[in-house]
Amino acid sequence: MSNSSEIRVFAPATVANVACGYDVLGFAIDSPGDEIVVRHCDKPGLHITQITGDGGKLPKNPTQNCAGVAALDLLKHLGMTDRGIEMEIHKKMPFGSGLGSSSASSVAGAFAVNKLIGEPLTKKQLLPFAMAGEASADGAWHADNVAPCLFGGIVFIRSNDELDFAQIPAPKNLWAAVVHPDIEVLTKVARGILPKEIPLENATQQIGNLGGLLCGLIQEDYGLISRSIHDVIAEPRRQKLIPDFYKAKRAAISAGALGFSISGAGPSVFALCEGEEIAHKVADAISKVFHAIPIENQAYVSRINPTGVHVIES
Amino acid sequence: MSNSSEIRVFAPATVANVACGYDVLGFAIDSPGDEIVVRHCDKPGLHITQITGDGGKLPKNPTQNCAGVAALDLLKHLGMTDRGIEMEIHKKMPFGSGLGSSSASSVAGAFAVNKLIGEPLTKKQLLPFAMAGEASADGAWHADNVAPCLFGGIVFIRSNDELDFAQIPAPKNLWAAVVHPDIEVLTKVARGILPKEIPLENATQQIGNLGGLLCGLIQEDYGLISRSIHDVIAEPRRQKLIPDFYKAKRAAISAGALGFSISGAGPSVFALCEGEEIAHKVADAISKVFHAIPIENQAYVSRINPTGVHVIES
Repeated sequence: MSNSSEIRVFAPATVANVACGYDVLGFAIDSPGDEIVVRHCDKPGLHITQITGDGGKLPKNPTQNCAGVAALDLLKHLGMTDRGIEMEIHKKMPFGSGLGSSSASSVAGAFAVNKLIGEPLTKKQLLPFAMAGEASADGAWHADNVAPCLFGGIVFIRSNDELDFAQIPAPKNLWAAVVHPDIEVLTKVARGILPKEIPLENATQQIGNLGGLLCGLIQEDYGLISRSIHDVIAEPRRQKLIPDFYKAKRAAISAGALGFSISGAGPSVFALCEGEEIAHKVADAISKVFHAIPIENQAYVSRINPTGVHVIES
Repeated sequence: MSNSSEIRVFAPATVANVACGYDVLGFAIDSPGDEIVVRHCDKPGLHITQITGDGGKLPKNPTQNCAGVAALDLLKHLGMTDRGIEMEIHKKMPFGSGLGSSSASSVAGAFAVNKLIGEPLTKKQLLPFAMAGEASADGAWHADNVAPCLFGGIVFIRSNDELDFAQIPAPKNLWAAVVHPDIEVLTKVARGILPKEIPLENATQQIGNLGGLLCGLIQEDYGLISRSIHDVIAEPRRQKLIPDFYKAKRAAISAGALGFSISGAGPSVFALCEGEEIAHKVADAISKVFHAIPIENQAYVSRINPTGVHVIES
């Protein structure tokens, strides 16, 4: 096949939950992210021909691979399952990291195939297919990684069931410092650690903080953002799965972060910062805490990515 | 004393909780509201000389009256407790109605006295004094009626403890239909009916709806507002204190309301509507349901009041 019929896409990592936004808020960062290449082929059906960067862990059977599931779900919806399509998956971020790895692959899979076949659907219309991919990997029906990965920016999910969401403008100078410590936190464990019931008082605090964060983001009020980035529900329970979590938090705040919490279900952590310079200092400060344990870790500094998944040069 | 040294203020009724905004959201309406008149006098101290519209129920002792407490707290702060001030309180709305009656009197008391003595404090600075008045009547430290009564518009309270709030712009065509059925709901009972713990799932739903409502209000998205006005915490429990609540809700929605819930701790109910005409139809529809029981009731139709407490002609 010629190069012109090959599509290469990049889907960014995402930070979900965002402290007080448990299950309802997420944002995209510039990097890391996954790349997926798709091209037409003569053999009918979807074929995953290559996976790199996964340490051999991901299945090539498209029905067992989240990128494959998202693409197949889309092709089924369009009545095109007999199309011959080859897919290469290049994982460029750790999975099980709390950075929306399976969401990135799911989004990239659906988006790339949609592009290849002439873009019959809009990004918004791709959301349920990407979510189906994510659900196959994660077992849950959540848009808080998938939606920001697809659309970019900060996305607020009113209802996962209804796929009802709103895009929140990101303040121009808002940067994220994200650090991934090389430890494993199973999503199952991170979910199991959450209680089924919480005090009404905590719910009210969380609602106050979530509303404050949304208002702060929309009104570009960094002070209000900072006062609002508190999670009284998941963080106090999940922090024990991340060594020296509070030490890292203190280091981030001391270095000037607006706030600090767990990215998704962890083990990655994130800080929101006003400006790139502070974000670099904060990332360094967090990274040092993990290194001192010692735990290997990768630090990423990024503005809020405004674009989400997109085509890149082959 | 001359008329020029007399100040008459109007403080509007307010709708707190606003469905999914339990304890964190409130807005002001144009009417009803309380009026307070203050003037200088020779006898040192604050004297409540007249109370009308209360059926003789409110104490004239300023330390036992929320308007008096707010004014005294302010005067104490300013070191002016020996000033001679007369206060008249004209209650023009039912108390125990869920319309922020004690907040209106508290705000009016602090605001009127501040005006009379040359306005040493800004409206924002008056907030804790008005809240002290409200707390003396209500036993709780809540700003969700006091803040919108003081500032007007829609006010989101991130934290009552920190008095941290944000003003939310009201969509231009947003109207409220508010109906007060003449029954008594004790705040103590309405509070006691709420559980101490709630399912995490309900908290997440409420957080989703509250965020959706804020985004809808800020982005003037009436559809999102409508999809977000749901209270899964207080309303399902408190509705049983209001006869035919769900019948009234269905009538409001059928008449075109964006959403319907309990105002404050009840028994008043409110609906948000797009446009004045719909708001009148909705108010009539709700009113009819209560009349049919039969329960006497008062219906109010109002835009979101943008001003809050203000001086009126004597």
